[in-house]
Amino acid sequence: MIPRDPSELFALANNGSRTALARLLSYVEAGGAPQRETVALAYQAASPYVVGITGAPGGGKSTLTDRLLTFSLERRSLGRDGDFDQVGVLCVDPSSPYTGGAILGDRVRMQDHATDERVFIRSMATRGHLGGLSLAVPDALRVLGAAHFRLAFVETVGVGQMEVEIASAADTTVVVTNPGWGDAMQANKAGLLEVADVFVINKADRAGVRETRRDLEQMLDLGTHEWRPPIIETTATNAGGVEQLWDALVAHRDFVRGPNFDAHRRKHLARELDKVLAVMLHAQVTELAHGDSYDAQIDALLAGTTDPYHAAETLLARS
Amino acid sequence: MIPRDPSELFALANNGSRTALARLLSYVEAGGAPQRETVALAYQAASPYVVGITGAPGGGKSTLTDRLLTFSLERRSLGRDGDFDQVGVLCVDPSSPYTGGAILGDRVRMQDHATDERVFIRSMATRGHLGGLSLAVPDALRVLGAAHFRLAFVETVGVGQMEVEIASAADTTVVVTNPGWGDAMQANKAGLLEVADVFVINKADRAGVRETRRDLEQMLDLGTHEWRPPIIETTATNAGGVEQLWDALVAHRDFVRGPNFDAHRRKHLARELDKVLAVMLHAQVTELAHGDSYDAQIDALLAGTTDPYHAAETLLARS
Repeated sequence: MIPRDPSELFALANNGSRTALARLLSYVEAGGAPQRETVALAYQAASPYVVGITGAPGGGKSTLTDRLLTFSLERRSLGRDGDFDQVGVLCVDPSSPYTGGAILGDRVRMQDHATDERVFIRSMATRGHLGGLSLAVPDALRVLGAAHFRLAFVETVGVGQMEVEIASAADTTVVVTNPGWGDAMQANKAGLLEVADVFVINKADRAGVRETRRDLEQMLDLGTHEWRPPIIETTATNAGGVEQLWDALVAHRDFVRGPNFDAHRRKHLARELDKVLAVMLHAQVTELAHGDSYDAQIDALLAGTTDPYHAAETLLARS
Repeated sequence: MIPRDPSELFALANNGSRTALARLLSYVEAGGAPQRETVALAYQAASPYVVGITGAPGGGKSTLTDRLLTFSLERRSLGRDGDFDQVGVLCVDPSSPYTGGAILGDRVRMQDHATDERVFIRSMATRGHLGGLSLAVPDALRVLGAAHFRLAFVETVGVGQMEVEIASAADTTVVVTNPGWGDAMQANKAGLLEVADVFVINKADRAGVRETRRDLEQMLDLGTHEWRPPIIETTATNAGGVEQLWDALVAHRDFVRGPNFDAHRRKHLARELDKVLAVMLHAQVTELAHGDSYDAQIDALLAGTTDPYHAAETLLARS
């Protein structure tokens, strides 16, 4: 029987126990005291290098992630940051209900790797606890780091606010497009430009690659970049362009780990901290709205002896 | 010269000075200390009866509001709650930039009433201060109440989250539709059902009224209602149906002021208080994110000596 204590679970996970690792990830999904303890331990370790992969459904993200996974396991090198011997994959679908951590249907192809000891694949879900996936995913990545994973992929389905937020928590974010997606990209230009470190035109064996590349270049011309996102053409079905994509990822990683690495990490950590702060403050409002002092303030408002601003200040001063 | 002090301004406004009233409303738009003082004074007075009018652009809301205004000034009675002698109109367009309180272009038809001393028309805008229009509009309504307005209309343009939130702060919310809007309503069914106290099918001289009414009835059949929103057909251009609409408004008002009036007012006030709480807490996050202790927590995160949850708790405990 595997233990329930997070530090014992980490010890087992570090000895290769996937069951222990899975339980730790369940803790960060479920929230509560075990989550807090797990996260406290995880943050003492180094983060893995995280590649986020996002884009509209149907673009071939799963196949591409699978190809990247295969390629990275062959290469087993993160450039000047050395080698790695195992890879984690988190599959995130915010619209999917909680499935007890089951692999989603369209991830089945990744099952090629399911018996590979060097690979750990996990579909992230949430029981709808505070902050949900936007907190659980960075926590899970930290857990992987503490279990000595030095590389992790996060694949998100869709291009909503949530998906983009999760993907942009990665060190390097890949936005996957297809030939002929000009109009679709146009609609979400600002959002894509903000998060993309690398653009991929997947299904590059189809017509319209040149136009899509031109659209992307025009979008990029509008901004100023310290790092101008390269545009890589891939054909994930036959692994075409995957080596070029991997090289682009490592090049971006080297850029990030350059002179501004500390500033980059601070920005990342600040984003995580702000998310937790926002969730905790939201919880405070909910809590404040269910107490006796709250009712007393509503009474005072009814009586006209206070106004909402004074009432709110009184409640906040007491909390 | 008119004074700057809110209590002096209220004294003048109560003597009929529209200039003083306009300045008080500018205070609640602009935020800051004068706003707080104005609101504190306003909340000591009774609220006016507020009719919110919302719906997609192009539905004829302005014309309908204008007709209601004319009709209400003729009737000058709120049923069992007695008579009134002046009416306020707030026109809210969240997408419109700050215009210094100028009347928007498409409100010009209301200028028929501009020289009518019994009418006060104001386009609400915001300089983008904390909480913006969703706080400024309820504050402005309170100011009207303190200046002895017993009836006010709030017309919002559009059916976004913001518009619906503003409209639903009214005592009675009118959702304006047109014949042939079946599909458009289908898309936002839940939102409309939640806020509508009265449905209007405006432009009822056009084809498709019967289908729209049937769609609305079917939507209403899905819910359970203490108050089932009536569906009123109007032709605002010739004032057709406006008397029936007015009667429906007063009927809803009488319903609201029934046995559950206290519960209704509590819910209203709680909504206002929650909004202010959320805005203040958001301000706290922003403030927290710009302090020395915040930077110290980021340092600790970088060093791996804390995690975001502990860091957030530390910051919140200090704030």
